[in-house]
Amino acid sequence: MGTDVAPAPEVEGAILAARAGYAQVLLVGPGEVLKRELDRRGAKGLPLEIVHASEAVTMEDHAAKAFRRKRDSSIRVAARLVREGKADGLISAGNTGAVMTAVKITLGTLEGVDRPALAAVFPTSKGTAAVLLDVGANVDCKPHHLEQFAVMGEAYYRVIFGVERPRVGLLSIGKEEHKGNDLTREALALLKQWPGNFVGNVEGRDLYNGRVEVIVCDGFIGNVALKISEGLIEAVASLLKEALSSTLSSKVGYVLSRKAFQNFKKRVDYSEYGGAPLLGVRGVCIICHGGSNANAIKNAIRVAAEFAEGRVNEKIEQGLAGASLARQRRQSDNAVSENSAAGVRRETERGI
Amino acid sequence: MGTDVAPAPEVEGAILAARAGYAQVLLVGPGEVLKRELDRRGAKGLPLEIVHASEAVTMEDHAAKAFRRKRDSSIRVAARLVREGKADGLISAGNTGAVMTAVKITLGTLEGVDRPALAAVFPTSKGTAAVLLDVGANVDCKPHHLEQFAVMGEAYYRVIFGVERPRVGLLSIGKEEHKGNDLTREALALLKQWPGNFVGNVEGRDLYNGRVEVIVCDGFIGNVALKISEGLIEAVASLLKEALSSTLSSKVGYVLSRKAFQNFKKRVDYSEYGGAPLLGVRGVCIICHGGSNANAIKNAIRVAAEFAEGRVNEKIEQGLAGASLARQRRQSDNAVSENSAAGVRRETERGI
Repeated sequence: MGTDVAPAPEVEGAILAARAGYAQVLLVGPGEVLKRELDRRGAKGLPLEIVHASEAVTMEDHAAKAFRRKRDSSIRVAARLVREGKADGLISAGNTGAVMTAVKITLGTLEGVDRPALAAVFPTSKGTAAVLLDVGANVDCKPHHLEQFAVMGEAYYRVIFGVERPRVGLLSIGKEEHKGNDLTREALALLKQWPGNFVGNVEGRDLYNGRVEVIVCDGFIGNVALKISEGLIEAVASLLKEALSSTLSSKVGYVLSRKAFQNFKKRVDYSEYGGAPLLGVRGVCIICHGGSNANAIKNAIRVAAEFAEGRVNEKIEQGLAGASLARQRRQSDNAVSENSAAGVRRETERGI
Repeated sequence: MGTDVAPAPEVEGAILAARAGYAQVLLVGPGEVLKRELDRRGAKGLPLEIVHASEAVTMEDHAAKAFRRKRDSSIRVAARLVREGKADGLISAGNTGAVMTAVKITLGTLEGVDRPALAAVFPTSKGTAAVLLDVGANVDCKPHHLEQFAVMGEAYYRVIFGVERPRVGLLSIGKEEHKGNDLTREALALLKQWPGNFVGNVEGRDLYNGRVEVIVCDGFIGNVALKISEGLIEAVASLLKEALSSTLSSKVGYVLSRKAFQNFKKRVDYSEYGGAPLLGVRGVCIICHGGSNANAIKNAIRVAAEFAEGRVNEKIEQGLAGASLARQRRQSDNAVSENSAAGVRRETERGI
């Protein structure tokens, strides 16, 4: 019940996904409405099932209050299905805060994860995808949170985009190590010790040039980055349209190049990437844009299925255990060398 | 000596500005080279003068070291001219860090300014301009720095764009007051008491939709915002070109709509806005992009002249004094009401 015109895009997207064989889909929401929508579209014989939920969280609802008060909301029911093992994951295009709250409380976090993170997928000029996290689940992060985001983003990229060792960068204001703020400088020191494919600081422009596959940052910065991009794309589209329709010859040009524009729009269309995963929770959760169409919902279901089948969460837990083992080893190495240094010092002091 | 192909764009831009009557221009750099460039272009009779400087800071130079070691660098000489009152302001397209360092040390800051801020000008879809600050002079800001940025950005916008009460927003991740990080929540409380036209939290997308004229943020966020925008514009341009040239009909369309594209590019071209002012220093300093052409340099000279003639710095000092007066008044009001509350409490305790 999440999209701006729910439940049509959800129902239609679910039918497309079921028809494509991506998954068995449970549609959670008002039973009668959903049944009518399914019947109207002739979805008989497809692996689709309705799970009734009498309430829905709106965009105006406060996330935590909605969770407490609307106990039979579609998002709470969906999260419960995942916790009980009746579903592998959930997709929602609803109130992002409410979805995150319901999922974090109902499912809990993976071993080694302090804070789940929301990851957004961006198209690059090389035709590849770049994943940015966190884009809004956590403002005011600590350095070790960014390290966890790196592990989570890498595991996600590996499974969903099939790149064995995706390059991971830390969003800063210059490639040089001394550039950045207190948070990024400390996170840089941590990430340099991380066993993954860390390439160091990257800049805002690297989000779109395909130089890295995964970029980690604080949720405040990531959210600003996401919304600036959306705003700029809108402004460019409107300015271009205006410029193109201002002369007769360019009107002709516009008609002729319309197909090219459609191709272009498709390439930068987030709906092709199927929404933003909430990484670090015990289960699969994909959050879609409120304006999602059926195609976006279909792709989100595909991504959720790949997420579950590719065992992203197991890989995250292994990655976090590996990072923590590596850190313990370093600490004990440091302790050993400090001890031997201390030994040498003591011997020196004794005049040996 | 700052642009990537110095000194041609600087000399040509200076000639254009002098010819347009924007200002008398002092060209600072290697005397013989500059004289040759001027002679070649036939600049006789124009209000242009050469001031010799034997050294130049490069992009590879470390800002603070370059300032100490290259005592006769063109940027240090230019800053000295401003300090000595021989020039009202300076323009440079060189190493941004080196320019900021030379200017801050040589000129010092205005009364009431803790940290100068770099302001970038963005085009909006409404055809207006939006000013974002700080875009990189200060990472790790305190709330009262953001308040000072608001005062400085407002004074700049008022003079340069002729808007009497520009709307000022605080860059955050949602319009609601509880949204944001520790820094923005504290800055919001301060700015709500500010006498200027403060509209509250704004989001990344408001940078481009013309909803506000001035947006304040931490220099880390601002720099990321600036570079994401540059990167996205590059990616959009390259993807559009690719899409347009992929079919014959759209090739024809491209040719026909070329003029429209040129108009569009001109509207989003930063060079029309004449560089980024460093606000809060005792003097005028406009920092241009290293890739600036003569037109950008010409516009930067125009903006610097308007900055000096419009007495932006006086307005900043008045604005800061006003903000600080308003705060003192509030504090004394609070003290009075606390005292009378304490008086009432004491009287109550005494049973009166």
